[in-house]
Amino acid sequence: MGDGEFNLINRLFRQDSGPRNSFTRLGIGDDASIHHPEEGMALAVSSDSSLQGVHWPDDFPLDKAADRAVCSALSDMAAMGAETRCIWLNVMATDSRAVAEMAQGAMRALARHDVELAGGDTCRAAVNALSVTVAGQLPEGAAMQRDAAGSGDHIWLAGRVGWHALGLQQWLAGRYDGEFVPCFEVITPLLQTGIKLRQAGVACCIDISDGLLQDAGHIAAASGVGMDIEITALPDWELLCQAAGEASALALAAHGGEDYALLFTAPDELPVAEGLAVRIGRCRSGEGVSLLLNGKKIEIEKAGFDHFR
Amino acid sequence: MGDGEFNLINRLFRQDSGPRNSFTRLGIGDDASIHHPEEGMALAVSSDSSLQGVHWPDDFPLDKAADRAVCSALSDMAAMGAETRCIWLNVMATDSRAVAEMAQGAMRALARHDVELAGGDTCRAAVNALSVTVAGQLPEGAAMQRDAAGSGDHIWLAGRVGWHALGLQQWLAGRYDGEFVPCFEVITPLLQTGIKLRQAGVACCIDISDGLLQDAGHIAAASGVGMDIEITALPDWELLCQAAGEASALALAAHGGEDYALLFTAPDELPVAEGLAVRIGRCRSGEGVSLLLNGKKIEIEKAGFDHFR
Repeated sequence: MGDGEFNLINRLFRQDSGPRNSFTRLGIGDDASIHHPEEGMALAVSSDSSLQGVHWPDDFPLDKAADRAVCSALSDMAAMGAETRCIWLNVMATDSRAVAEMAQGAMRALARHDVELAGGDTCRAAVNALSVTVAGQLPEGAAMQRDAAGSGDHIWLAGRVGWHALGLQQWLAGRYDGEFVPCFEVITPLLQTGIKLRQAGVACCIDISDGLLQDAGHIAAASGVGMDIEITALPDWELLCQAAGEASALALAAHGGEDYALLFTAPDELPVAEGLAVRIGRCRSGEGVSLLLNGKKIEIEKAGFDHFR
Repeated sequence: MGDGEFNLINRLFRQDSGPRNSFTRLGIGDDASIHHPEEGMALAVSSDSSLQGVHWPDDFPLDKAADRAVCSALSDMAAMGAETRCIWLNVMATDSRAVAEMAQGAMRALARHDVELAGGDTCRAAVNALSVTVAGQLPEGAAMQRDAAGSGDHIWLAGRVGWHALGLQQWLAGRYDGEFVPCFEVITPLLQTGIKLRQAGVACCIDISDGLLQDAGHIAAASGVGMDIEITALPDWELLCQAAGEASALALAAHGGEDYALLFTAPDELPVAEGLAVRIGRCRSGEGVSLLLNGKKIEIEKAGFDHFR
C-alpha cells in the first residue's frame, strides 16, 4: 500500500507498548523481529492462510473472519502442546476498510489469548486474505506428534466435533442469529488443554481442522496403525442428533471441520484427561480409520455434507 | 484444495529427505515444525507477502515470481545479519498449474541458498500470491537494527540501487530479453555480506526494498538522525547514467526498490567492508534524508518513476 502502509500498520496493529513477554526482544518495525528462546526449549512454528470465499463465506464479517484465522492458527500450538508466544500476520485486503476490519478482529483474538503480534505486512489485493504464522515454545523432545500412536492405544477427544459445521449450515441458510451460529463464528483453540496433555506425557495429538475422519487418518497414516472410533462416544453426540437428526449428525461429526477439538492417543487411564476429554476408540494394527455406530462399522458419505466451498 | 492438497504438497515441495540442518527437528507434515535453536543464539523472523499484479506484473512467469518472493524474504535475514535457517511458505494459487509453477520457483530459490522449507500450506484463491516467513539465527544482542545509527556515522552501501527498476522498465516495455531485465528477474539477497557486517560489529543496517530514499528514511527516523547521501558515490552510478540518462538515473536510484542492497552505518574505516561496500554519505544531527548531486542538495520526484503498480 505504498508509503502509507507503515503509518497504517502502526495505527491498526498497535498493542501495549513494548514486547509482552521475554521471548520477544524486538517486535514490529525492523526488517525482522528478534527473539530469545529459553534454554532447553524447542520452538514450534506453523503457518496457514485463510481466504475470503474459501475459508469463510463472502458475506461473513471480516473482523470475525480474521479472529477465526488467528485462532485456527493458534490451535496448531495446542495440537503440539506448545505455549504460544507470538504471531506474524500478513493481511491482504481489497481496501483500507477491509484492512481495518481484519486488523480489529486479529487484534481482538490476540488480546483474548494474550499473544503478541511480532511482525508481518499489509498489502492491497484482489481478495481479502490473511496468512498467520504462529510460534510457541515447549521442552525439547516433548512435542505431541502425529506419528506417535501405537497399536492398543486408546483414542481420546477433547472438545466437540460437528458443531462448527452445524453453525455454518445455519449461517449459510440465512439464520444469522441461529443457536449454533456461535459455534461457527468463534474458534476456541484448546491451548491450555494441549499444554496439560503434553505435560502429562501424551505423545500423539492432532487438532480437528479438516474433519474427524480425515484428521484421524493423518494419525493412522503417520503412525502406521488402524483406528476404530465409536461415533456414539463423541462428546454431546445425543445433542448433535437432536439438533440435526442422526443422518446429518453422522456427516457433521465425521466430516465437519474447524471445531479444533484435540484428538490424541493415550493409555486407558489418564487422570489429567478426566473432565478434559473422553475416550472415543482404540488404535489397532492395520491401517485406516473405521467409524463405528454402536459397534457396527459404517460408511459416512462426504457428499451429504454441506459446505460453502 | 481439499484432500488432494496433501499429496500435492508432498510432491511439489519435497526436498532432500530429512531436515537439512540441526535447527529443524521436525519439518513438513505435522501441525507445526519443531526447531532447536542453538544455545545463546537469538532468533530472527520476518514475514512478507507477494501478490500478482502488485509485486510482479500479471504476465510475469510464476516460477520467477515465486523465486523473487522467497529471495526478497531472505534479504531480511541479510539486513539483520542472521544466518538463514528455514522458511514457511503459504501458496495461494488460481489453479494447480499455478501451484506447480510457484512451487518450482520457490524450491529453486531455496536450493540456491541452501535454505530448508519447514512448513506452510497451499490454497486455491482468486489471485496468485505467496506469503513467506523466514527464520534465522544470530548471537544474542548482535542483530543489526534500524535504530542504531549515530550522528557522525558514515553511510555505506553494499550492492547497487536502481538497476532492478531499470530492468523492470525494460520488461514492461516488452523488451523481455533486455540487457537489464535479469536485474529485475532475479533477486540476490546479500546473505553472506550481512553476516560479515554483523560479525564486524556493524550495528545499523537495512535492505533497500522500497527505494534508497524511503529506506534510508526508516533508519533516520528510527535512529533520530539526519542523513546526507551523495548520489554520485553510488556503486556504478556512471553506468546507470549511461544506461538511463541522468534524469532517469536519479529517479531510479532514489526511488527504485527491490535491489536488496544493504544500507548500513559504520565508522569511516571498516576493513571488512572494503570490496563489499562503498561509502555514500554521513549521518548528522537533525532529521530526514538529503540526497546530494555533486554535493548540492536535490529533490528527486517520485512521479517520474515508472512502476507497474
